[in-house]
Amino acid sequence: MKLATFRYNQQRCVGIVDVAAKMVSIFDLTIENAKNGVQYLLDLLSEGGELPKIRETTSLDSVELEAPLPRPRRNIFCAGKNYLDHVKEVAKSGLGSGPTSGSEAPTYPIIFTKVPESVIAPQAKILRHANLTNHLDYEAELAVVIGKKGRGISRENAMEHVWGYTIINDVSARDLQKKHQQWHIAKSLDSFCPMGPWLVSKDEFDGNNTAIRCWVNDELRQDSSTSLFIFDIPALIESLSAGITLYPGDIIATGTPSGVGMGFNPPRFLQSGDKVKIEVAGIGVLENVVE
Amino acid sequence: MKLATFRYNQQRCVGIVDVAAKMVSIFDLTIENAKNGVQYLLDLLSEGGELPKIRETTSLDSVELEAPLPRPRRNIFCAGKNYLDHVKEVAKSGLGSGPTSGSEAPTYPIIFTKVPESVIAPQAKILRHANLTNHLDYEAELAVVIGKKGRGISRENAMEHVWGYTIINDVSARDLQKKHQQWHIAKSLDSFCPMGPWLVSKDEFDGNNTAIRCWVNDELRQDSSTSLFIFDIPALIESLSAGITLYPGDIIATGTPSGVGMGFNPPRFLQSGDKVKIEVAGIGVLENVVE
Repeated sequence: MKLATFRYNQQRCVGIVDVAAKMVSIFDLTIENAKNGVQYLLDLLSEGGELPKIRETTSLDSVELEAPLPRPRRNIFCAGKNYLDHVKEVAKSGLGSGPTSGSEAPTYPIIFTKVPESVIAPQAKILRHANLTNHLDYEAELAVVIGKKGRGISRENAMEHVWGYTIINDVSARDLQKKHQQWHIAKSLDSFCPMGPWLVSKDEFDGNNTAIRCWVNDELRQDSSTSLFIFDIPALIESLSAGITLYPGDIIATGTPSGVGMGFNPPRFLQSGDKVKIEVAGIGVLENVVE
Repeated sequence: MKLATFRYNQQRCVGIVDVAAKMVSIFDLTIENAKNGVQYLLDLLSEGGELPKIRETTSLDSVELEAPLPRPRRNIFCAGKNYLDHVKEVAKSGLGSGPTSGSEAPTYPIIFTKVPESVIAPQAKILRHANLTNHLDYEAELAVVIGKKGRGISRENAMEHVWGYTIINDVSARDLQKKHQQWHIAKSLDSFCPMGPWLVSKDEFDGNNTAIRCWVNDELRQDSSTSLFIFDIPALIESLSAGITLYPGDIIATGTPSGVGMGFNPPRFLQSGDKVKIEVAGIGVLENVVE
């Protein structure tokens, strides 16, 4: 099942997407319940409720997609350095810093966050922030969305807590990442979290073994597979939830493979007008242009 | 003015505290509007509204204080290494890591976050998390609460965006901080953000020049002044808001002075039963016991 949040007839709506038929079935929700997009359905399902009835079916072309979770209830959890080839490109670039600049895989997951308000819709503009950064970079990532509350979740039970997946572009200002040491600011600037195109339920594909690709202006830059995760999805959930209760609607971005701008010599950072397209097999495409 | 969130007659309420008279005046709010504590008033005031009328006045002893913002709308921003004597004690301890382990003041603010659900009330128990950490530590901090939305806020205008202050204990698992490199997990375990006792409006004292102290089991451990900030409050707001829009209710914890457990030789980490009391002149006292 693919759940989307979108604008239709000047209103935020939530629906089920049929990609093959290019149609979307719109749930019969109040404006208040549709306010946070798919979040309402995740809460409903986690409490044992059923999906609401369908109000209307329309063509996918007639709606304007928003991020499935347009304003997550708390910051987005993000894994850093979760593909070895990316760890190595950062080490080679000389732009990494401190304990995170080596070329070995980290022993424990590296977790930072992005503010909820950094989320933007598919096709929305990534702000250039030219007064703050000369090193604007992209990161294609599979994002896991939690469907069931829990703390101390074991590897074995981790997938029970996953509702599904979406795509995130973990936009990063590399110069700020280095300056501020902890990555929060560099990863949280307004518009730095394109998300979409929809949320796909976990039964539709294997999140630990799916292709992930990223193009900048139609040039293939990242081409990898989540089978290369250093910490797979159960490991990330086990580690995060060991002492932090996870809730339905929590988002865990799983890290990016090699091929980011900082990995090139010389680096190839984003400029105004650049188009970033990310594809994850089983989900679809997320595309955004830099303002 | 001191705004508090508290339970009274089995309900969450918000009121104005008169410390000298030991009384609290309770606002006439619906259950829905009182749900997020003082947040509703901050939103109301930021939109040009006036404080609601008072429903009832009762003795401070008759209410059970909660955190003024019991569930902030997004993660709490926290400054790391913002007092030079603390930077030095971390460097000496050998427990710091990487670029953040040196003894010099950072050139730019170091910002990480704590999840909103880590917030606990005055007198609530700090969870020991003995299965996860042997290095449970305390950090007395003045926290700034934003009252007016803004991005690109200059030093000169920064204080216009501050509503007031509260106290935070930035509880930290030092071993997890080192293991996970980025500090988010180590700072976000359930119960790791005691907050209170109330929110004090900015007119009542100078946040950039006030005494801050912390006792563990009545032994004075931290004894400093916010006049020793490396980055003062306007600098933190300027830096954070440069690319990230700030909103009413955002919380910025300003960092801790020296005297934390990891700063002693040998270190003196928290154990079950330890009582941590933090006092900030102009606000009051925040006290919590480790479970």
